[in-house]
Amino acid sequence: MDILESLINNISRLPGIGKKSAKRIAFFLLNSDEAFNKSLAEEISSIKEKIKKCDICGAYTENTPCSICSNPIRDNGIICVVEQSQDTATIESTGEFKGKYHVLNGAISPLDGISPSDLRINELLARCHNENIEEVIVATNPTVEGDTTALYIVNLLKDLGIKVSRLASGIPIGGDIEYADKITLMRSLNGRIEY
Amino acid sequence: MDILESLINNISRLPGIGKKSAKRIAFFLLNSDEAFNKSLAEEISSIKEKIKKCDICGAYTENTPCSICSNPIRDNGIICVVEQSQDTATIESTGEFKGKYHVLNGAISPLDGISPSDLRINELLARCHNENIEEVIVATNPTVEGDTTALYIVNLLKDLGIKVSRLASGIPIGGDIEYADKITLMRSLNGRIEY
Repeated sequence: MDILESLINNISRLPGIGKKSAKRIAFFLLNSDEAFNKSLAEEISSIKEKIKKCDICGAYTENTPCSICSNPIRDNGIICVVEQSQDTATIESTGEFKGKYHVLNGAISPLDGISPSDLRINELLARCHNENIEEVIVATNPTVEGDTTALYIVNLLKDLGIKVSRLASGIPIGGDIEYADKITLMRSLNGRIEY
Repeated sequence: MDILESLINNISRLPGIGKKSAKRIAFFLLNSDEAFNKSLAEEISSIKEKIKKCDICGAYTENTPCSICSNPIRDNGIICVVEQSQDTATIESTGEFKGKYHVLNGAISPLDGISPSDLRINELLARCHNENIEEVIVATNPTVEGDTTALYIVNLLKDLGIKVSRLASGIPIGGDIEYADKITLMRSLNGRIEY
């Protein structure tokens, strides 16, 4: 059963899915509706073509600039800096933040060979120079890499006269913004600490 | 982001995957290699065409009869009856069973509207009549439905002079054969109780 084994192998490469769950999903697909399989396959196959990165904030979007960057009601003076595109959706779900976003595409991590030049930090500096930015909220994860990245950005921005803040603790240390609950995230936004 | 939301929705319909895991997988696909996505999509799309059910035992296979049914070294006199095709792979992984299999495609469950006629029980009886079967091991799950199915099969087979046994306890009650560890399954095979 080479095809089935190859499918199970590929499914088990997805995040959070081990060998047994992959097997379970593969047999679910064998028993499921043909139309469901086709539509899932079509979406997986075309997702990278159809979803681009926003020219301004770098978040994934169908049209660039994204709906947040092109929204005239959002506050142009405040930027929330996140590691990953999906973090913007998590912060949006709190309904607490009305500014714009900036996606770094990761965090500084010498062990993984990720240096500041691999991140969208120059684009952030350009936005701070060209747009009328009053405050930057650094919402990197509370990990060693996220803390390093936050400090690096603070050092770059503090000479520009821009208020720089960081999400308050409340998010468990070592955790991941993607998995924080809404209330914790809301408190973190309200209680952010100015550098 | 309609396409991304639709992808997340479809992924969250897979077994064992909630909304947050689905989101995580969708963003993993956005960041991953185009070739990986295409090959995963191709496999999902074609799996139902390429994998058939074995004409004899009913297990999923690329070619029918399957590799176990067509294997001349396997013991023809003993049949292990399982609920699902994937249970055969789990029992095979113990290396303890050298006979053939018979897949029922479920278990008797009046609440879900599954009666004996919906299962491959007639095919099992035909095999017991036509092949030279000495023993049938009933390896249905130790649940209400699995127990009911086992008793139903025992009643049908005991007049045919065939030894009928059931996997020994060792598998936690209410659990699922698919998730049993090898040692537990091996003990269950060795300590099976004759009706």
